[in-house]
Amino acid sequence: MNREIRLVSRPTGMPTLDNFELVETPMPQPGPGQVLVRNLVMSVDPYMRGRMNDVKSYVPPFQVGQALDGGAVGEVVQSQSDQLSPGDLVLHGLGWRDHAVGDAKGFRKVEALPDISAYLGALGMPGLTGYVGLVDIAELREGDTVFVSGAAGAVGSIAGQIAKLRGAARVIGSAGTAAKVDWLVNELGFDAAFNYRDAPVRSQLKSAAPEGIDVYFDNVGGEHLEAAIGALKPFGRAALCGAIADYNSETPSPGPRNMTLIVPKRLSLRGFIVTDHSRRMPDFLAEVAPAIASGHIKFASTFVEGLANAPDALLGLFRGENTGKMVVRL
Amino acid sequence: MNREIRLVSRPTGMPTLDNFELVETPMPQPGPGQVLVRNLVMSVDPYMRGRMNDVKSYVPPFQVGQALDGGAVGEVVQSQSDQLSPGDLVLHGLGWRDHAVGDAKGFRKVEALPDISAYLGALGMPGLTGYVGLVDIAELREGDTVFVSGAAGAVGSIAGQIAKLRGAARVIGSAGTAAKVDWLVNELGFDAAFNYRDAPVRSQLKSAAPEGIDVYFDNVGGEHLEAAIGALKPFGRAALCGAIADYNSETPSPGPRNMTLIVPKRLSLRGFIVTDHSRRMPDFLAEVAPAIASGHIKFASTFVEGLANAPDALLGLFRGENTGKMVVRL
Repeated sequence: MNREIRLVSRPTGMPTLDNFELVETPMPQPGPGQVLVRNLVMSVDPYMRGRMNDVKSYVPPFQVGQALDGGAVGEVVQSQSDQLSPGDLVLHGLGWRDHAVGDAKGFRKVEALPDISAYLGALGMPGLTGYVGLVDIAELREGDTVFVSGAAGAVGSIAGQIAKLRGAARVIGSAGTAAKVDWLVNELGFDAAFNYRDAPVRSQLKSAAPEGIDVYFDNVGGEHLEAAIGALKPFGRAALCGAIADYNSETPSPGPRNMTLIVPKRLSLRGFIVTDHSRRMPDFLAEVAPAIASGHIKFASTFVEGLANAPDALLGLFRGENTGKMVVRL
Repeated sequence: MNREIRLVSRPTGMPTLDNFELVETPMPQPGPGQVLVRNLVMSVDPYMRGRMNDVKSYVPPFQVGQALDGGAVGEVVQSQSDQLSPGDLVLHGLGWRDHAVGDAKGFRKVEALPDISAYLGALGMPGLTGYVGLVDIAELREGDTVFVSGAAGAVGSIAGQIAKLRGAARVIGSAGTAAKVDWLVNELGFDAAFNYRDAPVRSQLKSAAPEGIDVYFDNVGGEHLEAAIGALKPFGRAALCGAIADYNSETPSPGPRNMTLIVPKRLSLRGFIVTDHSRRMPDFLAEVAPAIASGHIKFASTFVEGLANAPDALLGLFRGENTGKMVVRL
C-alpha cells in the first residue's frame, strides 16, 4: 500500500490537524515513460497555507478530498523511462505521499549530498527566492545596509548570507527565539539580529541600524513592514516575499500606518513570486552552490519524522518551530 | 513698499488663516547681477503643507517668522544683470510676495503665452510630475488600463491625458465633485470618471474597470490606494506621487488592509519626487508642449485673486476647490 495526506476541509484562520487526513491507497504502477519514486524528504512551506484557501492565486488551491503536493526528493524504485534508472535521486513536486508516480520529465535527477534536504532549501526554491529577491527585486548594491525579517527561515537565512557575500555593509535579521538570534549572529555571520518578541520591531531595528537601512527583505509583513518603511533611507528598496504574520488572519490586518513616507523617501516596494524567475536558477546555483560547498554559506534543516506528522510540520512553520528549512523525513 | 506672506505658527492638522500673516516690507533693491521682479501669478501646491511642519524632508521646512516661497511667474522691472532686461517674463521660486529680488540665474526667461499660469501647471512642475510618474515610475505601456486619483488636479489631469496620448486602452479618474467628473470625461477625454464622495472607491473603480487596472497614479493615498491595490492586475505598477487625504491627519492613518496582495499579485509601489527627475524636463516639453499647443492636451487653472488670499488658496486645495492648477493672481 501507499499513503498520502489529503485535505479534508478548508481552515478558517490557523489550520488544525483536523483539516488533513492520512489515507492508504493502492501502490501506483508506472506506465510507459513513467517512474515510481519512493520519497525520502518532503517540503512544507508557508505558501502552502494560501493553497488551503479556495482562492485563485498564482498557484491553484489544494482540492478538498485530494492529496496535497509540494517539493520532495526521492529515489527511483521502478522506471519505464530511459531517462531515469532505479536508484537515481530525483527532485520533484509530488510530496505529501510515500510514493509518487509520474512522467519521467517531471522528475529532475540530482546528485547525492550529505544532506539531500538542501535541494528543498538552500539549493532549491527557497534559496533562489532569497537570491532573486535581493539581487533582482531589491537591487542590492555593495555597501548597503540590509534588514531581513524571518531571517532564521529557509528563505531569510540564505538571503542574509547572500547579502554578506555580495558586499552588504551590514546585515540585520529578526527571528522569534533567542536561539535563532544566536544562530544568525554566531553561525551565519549576520552583523546583528534581534528577537521580535522582546520589544517593538521599530525600536530594535533602530538600535541595530541607527542610520537606517537601504534594503528590506520581507518575509513577515505586519509590524515588521511598518518598522522597515520607517527605517528605510531615501531611495530604499523593499522586496516583499511573504507575510507570514498575516497568513492565518481571519480579518484583514490594517496596513502600515506610515505609508505616506513612501513618497518623500521615494521608496520602492515590490512583491515577487519565485516561480516567475526560474530562468535565474543557473545563475543562482553558479554563485551559491560553491559558497555552500566551501562553507561560506551555511544552512540548516529542521526535520520532522514521518509522513503522518507532515501536517503538524506545516503548522509548526506558523509557530516558528523551524530553524532554516522545515523538512519532513519519510 | 513690498508685501509678503509669512508663516507665523505651525499648524496641527488642517492649517488655518491664523498660521499666516501679510506683512509690508521695504521694496528690495537689486544688487549687481540681480533683478527685481514683479510677480504676476504664483503657485500653491499640496506639497507646501508638508513644509509647514518642522520636519526634515526632501525640501526644507518653511521657517516661522519668514516669508514662504514657491513657484511664480513675474516680469522683470529692474535689472543689474546682462542676462535679463526689464519687461522679460521669468519663472522662479520666490512666490508668496509682490516683488522678488535675486541673482539673475535664479530666474528663467519664458515666452509670453495666452495663459502664463501654464508655466506653473501643465508646462511646469505638475506637468512634469505627471509625465515622470506615468512614463518612468509606472512604466506605462500601450494598451494599459490606468487609474488616476485626484484626476482633476494639476498633476492628475495631465497624467491622465498623457496616458491617453501614449496609447493607454482606458483611463479612469476620480475627483470630488460632479463638475470635475464631467470635465474629466467631456473635456479631457478620460474614458470614465467617478466622484469618490458618491460611493466607496472600491466599488466605483470595479464598475469603471471590471477587469482591473495595470497602472495606478496616486495623488490621494488612503482609501484610494487600498482600492487600487485591490484592482491592480498581476504585475501592476503604482506610482505614488502624493497622499493629499493624509496631509492634515493629526494621527497616522492605518495603511491599506490588503497589503498582502502585493506579493501574490507581484505589484510594484514606487514613491517619487519630481525634483529628482528634472533632467526629463526637455523630453517632457518636447512631447507635451506641442500637444498643449494643438489642443490634444487641455489644462485649466483656478484663479484666486490677490496676494492676501494666497493662504486661503492653499487651504482651498485641501477642500478640493481647484479644477486643474490652483493659482494666485497678484
